[in-house]
Amino acid sequence: MMGGRADGVSATTARIMELLKKPHGHYLSGQELSRHLGISRAAVWKHITALRRMGYAIEALPARGYRFSSSTCPYNALEIASGLTTKVIGRPIHFHEEVASTNEIAFTMAKESAPEGTAVVANRQSAGKGRLGRQWESPPDGGIYTSIILRPAISPREAPKLSLLAAVAVAEAVGGFLSHPPTVKWPNDLLIQGKKVAGVLAEMNAEMDRINFIVIGVGVNVNVKSGGEVFSPEVQAIATSLSAVEGVEISRVALLQALFGKVEEWYNRFLRDGFMPVREAWNRYSGMAGRRVTVRQIGAAFDGTVLGIDEDGALLVKEERGIVTRVTDGDVVVGR
Amino acid sequence: MMGGRADGVSATTARIMELLKKPHGHYLSGQELSRHLGISRAAVWKHITALRRMGYAIEALPARGYRFSSSTCPYNALEIASGLTTKVIGRPIHFHEEVASTNEIAFTMAKESAPEGTAVVANRQSAGKGRLGRQWESPPDGGIYTSIILRPAISPREAPKLSLLAAVAVAEAVGGFLSHPPTVKWPNDLLIQGKKVAGVLAEMNAEMDRINFIVIGVGVNVNVKSGGEVFSPEVQAIATSLSAVEGVEISRVALLQALFGKVEEWYNRFLRDGFMPVREAWNRYSGMAGRRVTVRQIGAAFDGTVLGIDEDGALLVKEERGIVTRVTDGDVVVGR
Repeated sequence: MMGGRADGVSATTARIMELLKKPHGHYLSGQELSRHLGISRAAVWKHITALRRMGYAIEALPARGYRFSSSTCPYNALEIASGLTTKVIGRPIHFHEEVASTNEIAFTMAKESAPEGTAVVANRQSAGKGRLGRQWESPPDGGIYTSIILRPAISPREAPKLSLLAAVAVAEAVGGFLSHPPTVKWPNDLLIQGKKVAGVLAEMNAEMDRINFIVIGVGVNVNVKSGGEVFSPEVQAIATSLSAVEGVEISRVALLQALFGKVEEWYNRFLRDGFMPVREAWNRYSGMAGRRVTVRQIGAAFDGTVLGIDEDGALLVKEERGIVTRVTDGDVVVGR
Repeated sequence: MMGGRADGVSATTARIMELLKKPHGHYLSGQELSRHLGISRAAVWKHITALRRMGYAIEALPARGYRFSSSTCPYNALEIASGLTTKVIGRPIHFHEEVASTNEIAFTMAKESAPEGTAVVANRQSAGKGRLGRQWESPPDGGIYTSIILRPAISPREAPKLSLLAAVAVAEAVGGFLSHPPTVKWPNDLLIQGKKVAGVLAEMNAEMDRINFIVIGVGVNVNVKSGGEVFSPEVQAIATSLSAVEGVEISRVALLQALFGKVEEWYNRFLRDGFMPVREAWNRYSGMAGRRVTVRQIGAAFDGTVLGIDEDGALLVKEERGIVTRVTDGDVVVGR
């Protein structure tokens, strides 16, 4: 079995689910499973119960055994871990039905020495966080809410690079499920048709010259209806979802696996080749170059034209009077 | 009463201690105290018991009342808070007899929204932390171990400035108790006669472009014997204490009050006037300019001559071949 570890799911439980997925509509008897795995039939039953609790619709007929109808795979750690091809990212996966904020949980786990790559995934967030202390609306059942722990041996000055790296990874992962490529807005929002579909919130714990760990939080509006039923009126006007744009439901499991894959790919590239490839990809995805923007910072605001991000990840904005300003904080509003 | 709030000490308890300190050797009767404060004599007794638990040697004679012999003031929150002249720093003070690490406690409190200025003070640390994940030896009863929560509205890129600011504040506070000024070693060690007497460990929680909070941890070897009984052999060769250098015991309460005062003074100056005054003071205290040093970083080491710190707090080191390198991480070893 190619796959990662789903925290809290035993290897035997995972193996039984794997076997149940194979015969496509046929029944597997308790006796077969018991013999094949070298465990008692009572133990088989215990694992079946665990799988049902995880959301798998498993039928049991006394004379025939167990059957899984594969059209209804749930969203859980086992599904995400099955077939995951990463070496570090998403190993292990900690899945929660509902949390206040996946970033909070990952932050606490990282403080308690969780290894690099550990991912927290939640089906729902009750207090999702956005940049600068803002809220991130997390409608139930339709979004991806995940936070990944990284422990790069870099200085806090370099941390913004990882946030931009994450934006590129999200753009590539999401792009694979769309008929048109998404665009990245500085620093790390993902837009489709000018509306937000995903965002990154990176938070770190650091000494002055060394990052202890960084938590990369990603929120993606996947199968969220863009109407007023799920988003608040303010958010409705500026946000959309992948399903609303494409007109089809998208598998959160498949998208999350792609996301973990892209984060790993880009993180390894960054560690090996530095920030330049990330910078090039970000500038390619951003489509911000040449756009007129308004930069809003604490106590300051100015207009200018975007040149791109520089080698440190700062946004270069050329003001009217010709001066090029490096923007490292605040908000950037793109003009029409 | 001029002073700050000692967390966990009631205002009445504090007031009674204040009254007991006044008559210098005379007794105050329970009746007098009870009348003066408008509380029962049983309540007076409860407060006396609380004060005794805090380490105050209070005598009680049935016929005469209570007496405090002022030569034996303990090290506790009430003593530190009494006479504290700061507005923000050390308000309130959370005092602990022993903790693993004051930085850990302050970090957790900051996560739980403790206000700017909150200070954690411990008499002992069982797992004191130094820079870059190293240990900080914290011999019992002789040192100052404190961590202060700050919430400056600055970017993580600017965080090293606060660490250097803390080094300047520690140098000035400690310098007030010494016959010769101490020197600061990059980034934030305090040396006397080439041996370490104090250190700063600043840790932050941050988004990519915004500090949520920063914890400034300060350790000072005050009345620690510099012999092998208290420091490990490795540390003995490179560390000393204020009392060992000056030949007298120094009041930890007075030094901590001075430290809080200096941190507040420099922090306000930084918020008002920026980093330039800190930079000038640091360069003045460092005595590193012109010194030959070896810089040791991950995967790199080079020799050069120190020029000072620049406007971002990086150490400028001029290499043989004339190139000036900005050092922002790693260790700097000063040559003889």
